Amino acid sequence: MTDPGGATSAAVTVRPESPSPANPATGSGIEAILRPRSIAVIGASREPGSIGGEIFHNLVSRGFTGPVFPVNPRASVVQSVLAYPSIEAVPHAVDLAVIVVPAVHVLDVVEACGRKGVRAIVVISAGFKETGDEGAARERELRDRALHYGMRMVGPNCLGVLNTEPAVSMNATFAPVRPPAGHVAFSSQSGALGLAILDYATQLHIGFSQFVSVGNKADVSGNDLLEFWEHDPGTSIILLYLESFGNPRRFNQIARRVARRKPIVAVKSGRTVAGARAASSHTGSLAGPDAAVDALCRQSGVIRTDTMEELFDVAMLLAHQPVPLGNRVGIVTNAGGPGIMASDACEGHGLAIPSLSEETVRSLRSFLPREASTRNPVDMIASATPESFERSVRLVLEDPNVDALLVIYVPPIVTRPLDVAQAILRGAAAAHAAAKPVLTCFMGSHGVPDGLRSLQEGLIPSYVFPESAAIALARAVNYGHWLGQPEGVIRGFDDVDPARAGAAIDAALRRATAGEPAWLRPEEVREVLSAYRIPMPASAFAASADEAVAAAQRIGFPVVVKLVSDTITHKSEVGGVALDLRTEDEVRRAFAGVAARLRQRGLQEAMAGVSVQGMVDEGVEAIIGVTRDPSFGPLLMFGLGGVYVEVLKDVAFRMHPLTDQDARAIVREVRGLPLLEGYRGAVAADIAALEETLLRVSWLLGHHPAIAEMDLNPIKVLEPGRGCTAVDGRIAVRDPL
Amino acid sequence: MTDPGGATSAAVTVRPESPSPANPATGSGIEAILRPRSIAVIGASREPGSIGGEIFHNLVSRGFTGPVFPVNPRASVVQSVLAYPSIEAVPHAVDLAVIVVPAVHVLDVVEACGRKGVRAIVVISAGFKETGDEGAARERELRDRALHYGMRMVGPNCLGVLNTEPAVSMNATFAPVRPPAGHVAFSSQSGALGLAILDYATQLHIGFSQFVSVGNKADVSGNDLLEFWEHDPGTSIILLYLESFGNPRRFNQIARRVARRKPIVAVKSGRTVAGARAASSHTGSLAGPDAAVDALCRQSGVIRTDTMEELFDVAMLLAHQPVPLGNRVGIVTNAGGPGIMASDACEGHGLAIPSLSEETVRSLRSFLPREASTRNPVDMIASATPESFERSVRLVLEDPNVDALLVIYVPPIVTRPLDVAQAILRGAAAAHAAAKPVLTCFMGSHGVPDGLRSLQEGLIPSYVFPESAAIALARAVNYGHWLGQPEGVIRGFDDVDPARAGAAIDAALRRATAGEPAWLRPEEVREVLSAYRIPMPASAFAASADEAVAAAQRIGFPVVVKLVSDTITHKSEVGGVALDLRTEDEVRRAFAGVAARLRQRGLQEAMAGVSVQGMVDEGVEAIIGVTRDPSFGPLLMFGLGGVYVEVLKDVAFRMHPLTDQDARAIVREVRGLPLLEGYRGAVAADIAALEETLLRVSWLLGHHPAIAEMDLNPIKVLEPGRGCTAVDGRIAVRDPL
Repeated sequence: MTDPGGATSAAVTVRPESPSPANPATGSGIEAILRPRSIAVIGASREPGSIGGEIFHNLVSRGFTGPVFPVNPRASVVQSVLAYPSIEAVPHAVDLAVIVVPAVHVLDVVEACGRKGVRAIVVISAGFKETGDEGAARERELRDRALHYGMRMVGPNCLGVLNTEPAVSMNATFAPVRPPAGHVAFSSQSGALGLAILDYATQLHIGFSQFVSVGNKADVSGNDLLEFWEHDPGTSIILLYLESFGNPRRFNQIARRVARRKPIVAVKSGRTVAGARAASSHTGSLAGPDAAVDALCRQSGVIRTDTMEELFDVAMLLAHQPVPLGNRVGIVTNAGGPGIMASDACEGHGLAIPSLSEETVRSLRSFLPREASTRNPVDMIASATPESFERSVRLVLEDPNVDALLVIYVPPIVTRPLDVAQAILRGAAAAHAAAKPVLTCFMGSHGVPDGLRSLQEGLIPSYVFPESAAIALARAVNYGHWLGQPEGVIRGFDDVDPARAGAAIDAALRRATAGEPAWLRPEEVREVLSAYRIPMPASAFAASADEAVAAAQRIGFPVVVKLVSDTITHKSEVGGVALDLRTEDEVRRAFAGVAARLRQRGLQEAMAGVSVQGMVDEGVEAIIGVTRDPSFGPLLMFGLGGVYVEVLKDVAFRMHPLTDQDARAIVREVRGLPLLEGYRGAVAADIAALEETLLRVSWLLGHHPAIAEMDLNPIKVLEPGRGCTAVDGRIAVRDPL
Repeated sequence: MTDPGGATSAAVTVRPESPSPANPATGSGIEAILRPRSIAVIGASREPGSIGGEIFHNLVSRGFTGPVFPVNPRASVVQSVLAYPSIEAVPHAVDLAVIVVPAVHVLDVVEACGRKGVRAIVVISAGFKETGDEGAARERELRDRALHYGMRMVGPNCLGVLNTEPAVSMNATFAPVRPPAGHVAFSSQSGALGLAILDYATQLHIGFSQFVSVGNKADVSGNDLLEFWEHDPGTSIILLYLESFGNPRRFNQIARRVARRKPIVAVKSGRTVAGARAASSHTGSLAGPDAAVDALCRQSGVIRTDTMEELFDVAMLLAHQPVPLGNRVGIVTNAGGPGIMASDACEGHGLAIPSLSEETVRSLRSFLPREASTRNPVDMIASATPESFERSVRLVLEDPNVDALLVIYVPPIVTRPLDVAQAILRGAAAAHAAAKPVLTCFMGSHGVPDGLRSLQEGLIPSYVFPESAAIALARAVNYGHWLGQPEGVIRGFDDVDPARAGAAIDAALRRATAGEPAWLRPEEVREVLSAYRIPMPASAFAASADEAVAAAQRIGFPVVVKLVSDTITHKSEVGGVALDLRTEDEVRRAFAGVAARLRQRGLQEAMAGVSVQGMVDEGVEAIIGVTRDPSFGPLLMFGLGGVYVEVLKDVAFRMHPLTDQDARAIVREVRGLPLLEGYRGAVAADIAALEETLLRVSWLLGHHPAIAEMDLNPIKVLEPGRGCTAVDGRIAVRDPL
């Protein structure tokens, strides 16, 4: 087997493109939206139940620190404030205009804002892209108009914006709740859901720094807000409700930078379109509708949750508690059953329940009753006093075997939840345990609200049942693990020959019909892979049985004979593959057999000949694949070969470009990993060469955007040091437009 | 390959043992506990905060319909009711005594109750089995004393019992909440958690028929309650919080009968001990701590949930809504984003979002605005009125493509949630759709409580986020699927020879040392399997290379040579297996190789010889295994061979005895099923023979309780009609005691 190119010396190292922070927070215009000094509400209404009435009311009654000007041509006073017939009539500079007029009037109003010198606008009004083509045209015009005047814009079709900083104190939404101030920033792509989000968070006592309902994202996007919040000192965690990605590649770059400083937690609804296309490659058919989003979150360090509840459960934890440095959880409880439930939940989500140190056990024994269990979970039994909570919390938190603490309290009749909550706060505060988060679970809710509120105010999160606490903690542990990995770098290769690969690709492109992908011929595939130093076994084309025999003699037995056809893609399904041929006679019969089976199917015309290839009968079978998502770009797939991929769907995905860390991670994500590591005494495989091959494929994709799909299937991973070799490869190209 | 015994003709059919309903509800004594005509509270206290004070207070203030007698030697009046110094001093017949005295006095009090003729007791007091050996002894004495007097007993160490039937109206718990009346029966094994459960359910407006905190289950168990609730007309759904199974085999029998009439939903915390033992068989090492519980729930139709939240989410649905007949969900919403979230959540949990019929789409179009989406999910957009909810709900519910309806409401500013809730109720009531459940999701909670309560009272469940609704519905759909399957029968086989198998097993048992399992020798394994008509390839023992060659000639090439050893269990790990030997010479070299490799390891003494066996080089590899849990009894395992089992842990379990339905289900539960069904044009396998083999193994286990562990690994499943054959088998036996 060829060595994959002595690539260590050939590798060059490239940092992932970093979007230049040319728009530091203050310069991006987001400042004018979230920290305006004066606001006009255009469409401010006297009706308390109307949207224009509620927004104006919220701004004034929640104490916006600058002046608010109602604009309404049909009212001279709005909610006791002097109103103006137009924005231009306002006798004061206006930083932000909130627009609540019917869609057909929005353009005129924006024009007037521009003339007036307004710095930014929030368009609440609906009736744009979400209503169809006419609305979409109107939205493009709206965006152009705002751009023309240099105004940043949130919306249209949104719920508004909110900033709780005391110096601003702006609630420019029509939400009826009053969310508390705090350190959580939230960007929501659904206005309707935004209302529910504000309600739910308020119930949980989750405090917001800022909240932005981005609506149709005609201008300001989640990416802009991520960059703003990266530098906002009042924001310690960023939450995203996403329905689509405007620019996933930019999101990938920004998020992986921001996530190093602040946790980003996202819930994504809706589907990307990749899965909707009929896919003709294995990779394409295996990339579910969600593969791209999932890959994006994994590689950029974004904590993706399945549900809105989980989003807030994680937010409660990471808004104030440290990111755990490991997965070992100490549990302190006053009831056995819930303690076991909690252990189960932790272990079920990948957390460990370690033994406590002897010293901790001895100290616990010194004051807990004889019936108490001083092993982990520590069951203090129902008679536990607030003092036992305080001491146990401190002791377990300080135990070197423990990375995080979960305290469970089941209210018996004798202790008051508030006392226990305060004891927990005291115990946690006294512990010398810098980077260990504390979570609590006050089972049920009787009497909990008081205790819960005091815990929340003491910045310790509280959950109703232990399962939610375990899931939130597990996600935080994964995030901590990501933080602990080195930042990836993109390895380039200077031993490749892009022009040679390009020539083969261009040849295939010339055969492509409009819009349809063209598959490269076997010799073209070989040319492309060879140009990128991805080894394949020796091979030759043969148009007849005699040529096949001659080729086999040249290559050396045993060989494989495979159908060559421009039209048949799954060769084995038409009986087009014969393996392990050891003699001339077997090669001759294999050639005849392939031809006969095609004739049976009436496909004899499809046979151009066969390829004769050296047989690789060792190594672990794997697949490396590429599919392309219209908005995410190329997605790389890795899996083990054959049934692992096709029956068990045991595959992992990453977005191109791959860093060295991404290559490490994608290989280790499949369940079948032990097969590569040398399972049960079997020989291990050359995982380093496999990772390098993945990086070479990514490097190839960067040079050749015409590559639409690709399967290296199987790729045989040989013993460590012997590299890997692509036994079969398919590449489809399409005009990149 | 031998046909597995022409078994169709040899099969006899046996109904699963049905525990005779000798204890119909009224006769089991549970009646006296849940429907007493008079109650004494022994240890009733004047202190409102004490447990004895609270129980007495709850009984009186919640309006128990009979007389309640406080018993307290140190008070003549308790909470304004005349008190008695002892139970025997009460001048009236007492059906139920609730005992709240310290543990050391409980026995005397129970003795007095017996003398008095009390019919049943509830022992709240703690200080028994849960505190260690001394307490356990006291608990045994307590049970014997109660039994002696024919009194059924709940507890000790429990929260009490509750029955909301108006004719009884008994709250004999010390819980401070007042749960509403309803149709949900609940048995909780944790008193501490019981309080949280009652609180949480009360918040959700979930009404109880009865609630029993079973405590240490010294007498009355969850099984007794299941049988009582089976016939209780006021109970439509049964919830269980379990920490252990007292008698899992009886639970299996009772639950699978009861679940046909009423849904049983269970959450189980804590672990069974099977996984804790060091296991020497593959099956034993693969049976996780939870495999037995999971198998039990799957085969008895019990809906197992992961969390307490899910338990109640399912309860809200199945308490009043019909069990869905299929998995197709119609979604009606007034906001796009949440509609997509709901679709994602449904599809993520195995539900389908079908297209609506043309007629439904046409009818929806007639009154919904142009911008609305009349495809599924039906997005009526934010302007939807209560009337649009009513009409859409009815139309979609009546659509023949839909099995269940999920209605999502995001409160915009213009409609009132209460109006929408009532419109949904009207729409659902008007629909002609008998067995289609309706679920709602009122996002967030602003203003929801009103709407939610009216929905709950209208018996339509409401969830805060769509994910919970989807999970609850998915579990209900699985339950509906289970209900739709025929009741399984245990197939017996009259072509087997139990005595012949028993002789081989006894021979091995004679070699067993105390408590340790003994492995059967290869010829004994062959004897046992052959007695149960489970085919193995032809085989012979050979003590020398010459004998091995002679055997191979008799059997016919190719053959396999395998080490025979009483002490080495994993033969392949010591190089003790040589496959596909085609010549005499290869057999001779294989024999020498096995011996040489053992010598290298210093294990030459361990070699008794080799077995020479016909090579089965076709068929799909599978494994059938048995492990034994001390309380669950034998567990059968099925998986596909090799890495599927050992790396991917793709296995399924069922409790013995297996019904024909269990055999069907266990084979179809593995992810690798397509390999048996003939994946990608490959030949299918004889699944019928595989199922029969599973049933034969179960039949074998029933006859021979000494079998502790067993691996048929691999078992080759040949083409349909050609049966399957066990290439290797290992059986360990242990004195069944």
